[in-house]
Amino acid sequence: MSTISKRSLLVAGGAAVLAAVLPVAAPAQAQPARNRALFQVTDNDPARWNMILNNMTNLKEGVGSEGVEIELVAYGPGLLMLKADSPVKQRIADAVKSGVKVNACQNTMNGMKLTPADMQPEIGYVPSGVVEVMKKQQQGWAYIRS
Amino acid sequence: MSTISKRSLLVAGGAAVLAAVLPVAAPAQAQPARNRALFQVTDNDPARWNMILNNMTNLKEGVGSEGVEIELVAYGPGLLMLKADSPVKQRIADAVKSGVKVNACQNTMNGMKLTPADMQPEIGYVPSGVVEVMKKQQQGWAYIRS
Amino acid sequence: MSTISKRSLLVAGGAAVLAAVLPVAAPAQAQPARNRALFQVTDNDPARWNMILNNMTNLKEGVGSEGVEIELVAYGPGLLMLKADSPVKQRIADAVKSGVKVNACQNTMNGMKLTPADMQPEIGYVPSGVVEVMKKQQQGWAYIRS
Repeated sequence: MSTISKRSLLVAGGAAVLAAVLPVAAPAQAQPARNRALFQVTDNDPARWNMILNNMTNLKEGVGSEGVEIELVAYGPGLLMLKADSPVKQRIADAVKSGVKVNACQNTMNGMKLTPADMQPEIGYVPSGVVEVMKKQQQGWAYIRS
Repeated sequence: MSTISKRSLLVAGGAAVLAAVLPVAAPAQAQPARNRALFQVTDNDPARWNMILNNMTNLKEGVGSEGVEIELVAYGPGLLMLKADSPVKQRIADAVKSGVKVNACQNTMNGMKLTPADMQPEIGYVPSGVVEVMKKQQQGWAYIRS
Repeated sequence: MSTISKRSLLVAGGAAVLAAVLPVAAPAQAQPARNRALFQVTDNDPARWNMILNNMTNLKEGVGSEGVEIELVAYGPGLLMLKADSPVKQRIADAVKSGVKVNACQNTMNGMKLTPADMQPEIGYVPSGVVEVMKKQQQGWAYIRS
């Protein structure tokens, strides 16, 4: 469905009349929102990383059969969570395997003189963590800064 | 371009004409959004808890007669804010009395082996703090991670 | 008013027909969202302040010719970032010069017994930082809590 067709026509009270005349999409907002959550990691703190990994599991289990799309984006000091020697590397690998998108910020990597060879092999990359945070919110993702 | 002319269908200048044909609700975006704010507490830090309690008071006073619906959800290490022996327990009780909904995460309680008997009597519970954060944003609540 | 009746008119696929009858603005939601980001500063931590200033630069560069409207609002302990003697005062001045709106919370200033004479001359003020955070999200700004 195109973005446009998801947005509503909407003619409160007159929907039936108008529907007879024009093709009318159902109003997006009257439907449950899609479950999509972006987790931002900007701290260098393994205790917090573990909490975020727990949060992602809890979110997935909490929504049950509804399903949820989850992305984690790490930038600034949070990038260290995704290095090859990260203390949570196994949990990251498991998260990716379970369907979570895990992305490192290339701006931060440049600043830290890191290359993908320094990072966990399972992860992906975004040009800018902060741009990712803004864009995902614009697209209706929930933002979780743990 | 004015805010109105960017908003949808929008009937710029033609509202009266259309209104004569169909019952049409005013576009949501042209109305002020309802004031609703979700405060997330995930730190174990009484100084921050006091700041969040101040923020909630400031928010209420700041919107004045507009009113505002406020919820606080505590999970992870932030759950300790809501224990029966919390250093801010009186302020929490006052917040609840003033209309703030204060919710503890049951996932976290299970993890910490806590039961409602360990918690302040005024609070409520949600199955998962992180699910609450996502759902409230989906419903249009502002998210405040102090 | 029901959720539906608050949503507005938009006529997927039938826009041309309606447009022939009425002057109709393009639906806001079908267009790419405007790039607008609110950065909240609530920590008293110069390392974090520098990171936020880097983030704002990265955001601006990351969106390139799309452009982005950026506001920083400081409250609670984060207000110290904007004092006249702030370790990042030159970077703040540069950010303002580059078009970022930098606002201090007057509630916090009152609590800290500070006046504009204590603050950097380039900044602006909002009555309440937390109200600003809520209102900007209501208006569709992305929220970034670094």
